[in-house]
Amino acid sequence: MKTKKVAVIGASGYSGEVLVQLLLNHPHAELVVVTSRQNAGQTLAQVFPKFASHPKSKIIRFSEPNAEVLAKQADVIFLALPHGVAAEYAVPLLNAGCVVIDLSADFRLKNSETYKEFYAHDHPAPDLLKKSAYGLPEIYRDEIKKSLLIASPGCYPTSILLPIIPLLKTGIVKPTGIIADSLSGVSGAGRKAETDYLFCECNESVRPYGVPKHRHLSEIEEQLSLAANTQVTIQFTPHLIPVNRGILTTLYLAPEKHFSTATEMNSLNEKISACYARAYGNEPFVRLLDGKNLPDTKNVVGTNIIEIAWRLDARTGRLVVMSAEDNLVKGASGQAVQSMNVLCGWPETAGLI
Amino acid sequence: MKTKKVAVIGASGYSGEVLVQLLLNHPHAELVVVTSRQNAGQTLAQVFPKFASHPKSKIIRFSEPNAEVLAKQADVIFLALPHGVAAEYAVPLLNAGCVVIDLSADFRLKNSETYKEFYAHDHPAPDLLKKSAYGLPEIYRDEIKKSLLIASPGCYPTSILLPIIPLLKTGIVKPTGIIADSLSGVSGAGRKAETDYLFCECNESVRPYGVPKHRHLSEIEEQLSLAANTQVTIQFTPHLIPVNRGILTTLYLAPEKHFSTATEMNSLNEKISACYARAYGNEPFVRLLDGKNLPDTKNVVGTNIIEIAWRLDARTGRLVVMSAEDNLVKGASGQAVQSMNVLCGWPETAGLI
Amino acid sequence: MKTKKVAVIGASGYSGEVLVQLLLNHPHAELVVVTSRQNAGQTLAQVFPKFASHPKSKIIRFSEPNAEVLAKQADVIFLALPHGVAAEYAVPLLNAGCVVIDLSADFRLKNSETYKEFYAHDHPAPDLLKKSAYGLPEIYRDEIKKSLLIASPGCYPTSILLPIIPLLKTGIVKPTGIIADSLSGVSGAGRKAETDYLFCECNESVRPYGVPKHRHLSEIEEQLSLAANTQVTIQFTPHLIPVNRGILTTLYLAPEKHFSTATEMNSLNEKISACYARAYGNEPFVRLLDGKNLPDTKNVVGTNIIEIAWRLDARTGRLVVMSAEDNLVKGASGQAVQSMNVLCGWPETAGLI
Amino acid sequence: MKTKKVAVIGASGYSGEVLVQLLLNHPHAELVVVTSRQNAGQTLAQVFPKFASHPKSKIIRFSEPNAEVLAKQADVIFLALPHGVAAEYAVPLLNAGCVVIDLSADFRLKNSETYKEFYAHDHPAPDLLKKSAYGLPEIYRDEIKKSLLIASPGCYPTSILLPIIPLLKTGIVKPTGIIADSLSGVSGAGRKAETDYLFCECNESVRPYGVPKHRHLSEIEEQLSLAANTQVTIQFTPHLIPVNRGILTTLYLAPEKHFSTATEMNSLNEKISACYARAYGNEPFVRLLDGKNLPDTKNVVGTNIIEIAWRLDARTGRLVVMSAEDNLVKGASGQAVQSMNVLCGWPETAGLI
Repeated sequence: MKTKKVAVIGASGYSGEVLVQLLLNHPHAELVVVTSRQNAGQTLAQVFPKFASHPKSKIIRFSEPNAEVLAKQADVIFLALPHGVAAEYAVPLLNAGCVVIDLSADFRLKNSETYKEFYAHDHPAPDLLKKSAYGLPEIYRDEIKKSLLIASPGCYPTSILLPIIPLLKTGIVKPTGIIADSLSGVSGAGRKAETDYLFCECNESVRPYGVPKHRHLSEIEEQLSLAANTQVTIQFTPHLIPVNRGILTTLYLAPEKHFSTATEMNSLNEKISACYARAYGNEPFVRLLDGKNLPDTKNVVGTNIIEIAWRLDARTGRLVVMSAEDNLVKGASGQAVQSMNVLCGWPETAGLI
Repeated sequence: MKTKKVAVIGASGYSGEVLVQLLLNHPHAELVVVTSRQNAGQTLAQVFPKFASHPKSKIIRFSEPNAEVLAKQADVIFLALPHGVAAEYAVPLLNAGCVVIDLSADFRLKNSETYKEFYAHDHPAPDLLKKSAYGLPEIYRDEIKKSLLIASPGCYPTSILLPIIPLLKTGIVKPTGIIADSLSGVSGAGRKAETDYLFCECNESVRPYGVPKHRHLSEIEEQLSLAANTQVTIQFTPHLIPVNRGILTTLYLAPEKHFSTATEMNSLNEKISACYARAYGNEPFVRLLDGKNLPDTKNVVGTNIIEIAWRLDARTGRLVVMSAEDNLVKGASGQAVQSMNVLCGWPETAGLI
Repeated sequence: MKTKKVAVIGASGYSGEVLVQLLLNHPHAELVVVTSRQNAGQTLAQVFPKFASHPKSKIIRFSEPNAEVLAKQADVIFLALPHGVAAEYAVPLLNAGCVVIDLSADFRLKNSETYKEFYAHDHPAPDLLKKSAYGLPEIYRDEIKKSLLIASPGCYPTSILLPIIPLLKTGIVKPTGIIADSLSGVSGAGRKAETDYLFCECNESVRPYGVPKHRHLSEIEEQLSLAANTQVTIQFTPHLIPVNRGILTTLYLAPEKHFSTATEMNSLNEKISACYARAYGNEPFVRLLDGKNLPDTKNVVGTNIIEIAWRLDARTGRLVVMSAEDNLVKGASGQAVQSMNVLCGWPETAGLI
Repeated sequence: MKTKKVAVIGASGYSGEVLVQLLLNHPHAELVVVTSRQNAGQTLAQVFPKFASHPKSKIIRFSEPNAEVLAKQADVIFLALPHGVAAEYAVPLLNAGCVVIDLSADFRLKNSETYKEFYAHDHPAPDLLKKSAYGLPEIYRDEIKKSLLIASPGCYPTSILLPIIPLLKTGIVKPTGIIADSLSGVSGAGRKAETDYLFCECNESVRPYGVPKHRHLSEIEEQLSLAANTQVTIQFTPHLIPVNRGILTTLYLAPEKHFSTATEMNSLNEKISACYARAYGNEPFVRLLDGKNLPDTKNVVGTNIIEIAWRLDARTGRLVVMSAEDNLVKGASGQAVQSMNVLCGWPETAGLI
């Protein structure tokens, strides 16, 4: 299998760090460039002491990001940049023939109006929105294979979309009244020097934030609407909890079919089970829990796996679906590498297990 | 003000420990007896080194619990015992004329059938159910004043009932479709030697449990039904998060009145604001948050305060209410002391601030 | 007892916050002014939501610090400012007749040369060094009573000095070869927006820092030298551990008297025990542990207490002494309030238990 | 390279779990048997949900440990059993021709009297003590290659021995007066259902324990004595800190050569640097830190790497050496796999990076 040269632009945050880690150990991708304004000139080993035992860590030096130069150095470029900035780099890199895998929100939405509503500025490159594939391989594998611009999904969206999409597509649950209650580790806030994310402000603390209109709603609702083939609006409440990594999402859904007897409940349970088995039974990164098991972030942190379990509640008539993922891996960098594997025709699990 | 003698039965768990701490420093209650099978013979200072600087800690020794003896030693008896066991002690103590404040679930339900459904055994003293007051002073202050048996509420119920009851009573929200999503610190599981609650099993982990039918639903639904004057069934999902103390609850409610314009939303917001101000504006232990503030467990841990904030979501038509409390104080021992203060005619905040 | 008016200058950091909390609830001190450049204009309730239930929190507003104005408003002024800045305020306040209790390092050293060596700038007010009392009440109670300028000790120094000073004064241990190995919670680094103290950089991490010449060595060694009546130089290694509050210090000391037999060991043990009992037996804030108990920060966090335990090691001939304190209370603000109590002639424990 | 069949006896604790994880992904070892009394009959996927996505996890079932049967099934047997019990299995397995890699303390000491002194029972198989190799590959690579019984070192010993041994062997530091102050994550206590290790007892807590004579002293001192060629007795204080994994050790050493001038200090620094470079410059699992870097457990957790840094202190004349490792990997299971790699002639890093 032919190796490709890859670069990570904006490699000093938490997602960038995990990307670097995955790419340093990837069997087919060769990490050749990392950029970061603040760390320019330093080696990977200097910036990330934990990588210092990797032979390449003392050779690869952070450079200033420069699209023109990058386009000559690498075949695949990961953008781990703030929204708005990512698009600026994507345009020249795509023009120069690079594959671009963007971890920001810039190319996740098909509708540039929604982008403006949620991100408060005009979309910097609306023409590209048609060309990008939403990098959720379990759902968009074929599109990813054919695209040169991958919009890797947000951490919360991944934890919400993978559990719901199959249920919506098969009409098992209603597209109305959906509630997503999510708990995220602090790395989700990025490596930003803000007092809100100091150890003493997060430790021994739990708090909701961004209620009721968090930015990630834009891509969540666009994707759910596509799956349901009707406009979907959901309730979403993110919370910050004192763990480094991990998102636990609890979803409250209304089954299309009313159930009250044990027979009806069993029948619906089997339908859901079959739906998930069909959608994810062969997916290496989706773990459907059975028996009494419920998702636990500690079982997925450090992996590209999302755990999913569900319970029907005969008392309320609702379906409760729960998921757990590592926000930096399946919720960000691992999924981006998974998309690269798909796009490059490599085994989808390469460098990820 | 006349001092009363108090005893804590089952003082070796986390609630018992907090009760002892509060009672050692209470201006009107004199802690005279603590019991614990496993610690019998030891002083408070030996069992709880953190109390060792209190002069009484080296004098008060744990004894074996014995209702007959206790009834002669103390006027007010706190039961910090498992459900089922608590009732066994309550009966003779009440007969002997003691005030009993029970922190277990034994006297929280008016309906002994519900008790059997959720606790899987016959209620040990169904006649007492009529005589007990549900120890939520903000709601049942008058009943508490007149009762000799207080059933102190559970930690989750407190975090759910205080925010919802005023809204249901005034008919601002519908009694249907209520969802309570709660996050609890590990002390909620008690000081039990089980591997599930070991540091390494809880740290860097988040997980739901008891889905979909947790025992606390029984008292939550009974109380909500009383407030709504109709049978209420809710969805409740508890999660375990890696903090010692604190419960954060997010409630999803449907306003009776539809709102979509800004004017309708403002008007509803004012109605809710007025409802809460009327219910809790003068309550020393309810903190209604305004402005951009959202509840955070770190602002209430170690206090008897519950924080409440809310947001209307024009996109979904829902009302999201959030609360934070210390599960061991407002959710257990602090609230029990608050009930004692009410019942004994002491200032309600005595020993609590 | 006559109430005094007190002010906290620089009340937005962690020590300032704890000072405010203690002073809001102090029986004899009336908090009248808090200052903070960044929070000027806001109320205590706005800056510290956790104080919002205190009646004064909505009245007291942060002001810009101004020594002239302050001197008219308050009798006792606490300075919770960076070193160098504190001295600038102290001079005019003392001239105006205020009592100044400084939590910075500015007046802790008698020797201005040592100050320059460790703090890298000339001492801003060397004449005041003679007039200040080192605010360790267990050691300098009489000096504190007579002084108008209290230099409240650092957090590490408190945890090291209280266990060692009595042993040095009685000649039980040698003044040479002393090693102090300390572990501190992250609040010790202050509420600074630096990436090093972000949750994800501290959680699941332990690391030494400031090796081998931490600034606190200056006051530790000056105080130990005074106690030993000879120049003392020690080894000190601070470590950062993932807790909010608490310092655990392990001290390695060489007894003057060699011990190898059980009899010699018992005799030395009794001597140490008597020495500590004499020094601290009646001190309300020093808890001498006996039996098998060892210090644990969780038993002192939130209190003004320091726990001390020791073990003789017949195998090595050494004495190992261990202490635990809350770095923000006994290590900072609680001790400052204790000094105020001493200086004002109030009960030493007022507002502290 | 020929694959070998391996078994893990006692695979339900934390070390066992990490061993299983490493062996499931090892390129040359094939995990064929795992045993555990309490989990017998269950699959790996059932006991460890985090392994459930590995194809083998649903095939491999825990069995009851039976030496006779095991000897037929596997070539290499890891014992993750309590001391005393391990030896019982080792004897028949060795007799049957298996390679035994023991993670307990049973074969770490050459002197059975020391074993009795520290473990309080007679050694169950003293004859085997001569045949075992101490499984610290950086020191005993040749012995490991030739032995069929590997005594894998304890977690604290690894963190202490690797930094000190080269210094003692070259005579750079004195063999007297050594102090080791260690901080360990809670997984070091094992997956035991004891209240001391509950989340709420460890979180927001730091405490020393086992002072002054922890069992690990026996192997530490035996190994240091061998390196120094004289009897070495050290001071060792372990502390429990609230992290899942990681040991940080701070060592206080006395250089043989006095240094006071800058020139003497530089010269000694170079000597130490050269000593470590010679000992570990080519070791894949020892990371010598340079510049201002100090060890941090977060940089090694999840890896088989030990970080080492040092500082000379001209003020005290001491050498302070600090190390960081993952107690379950380099301090236990990773090191055991490293020994297997050496013994089997595989690349030493196989399955470990």
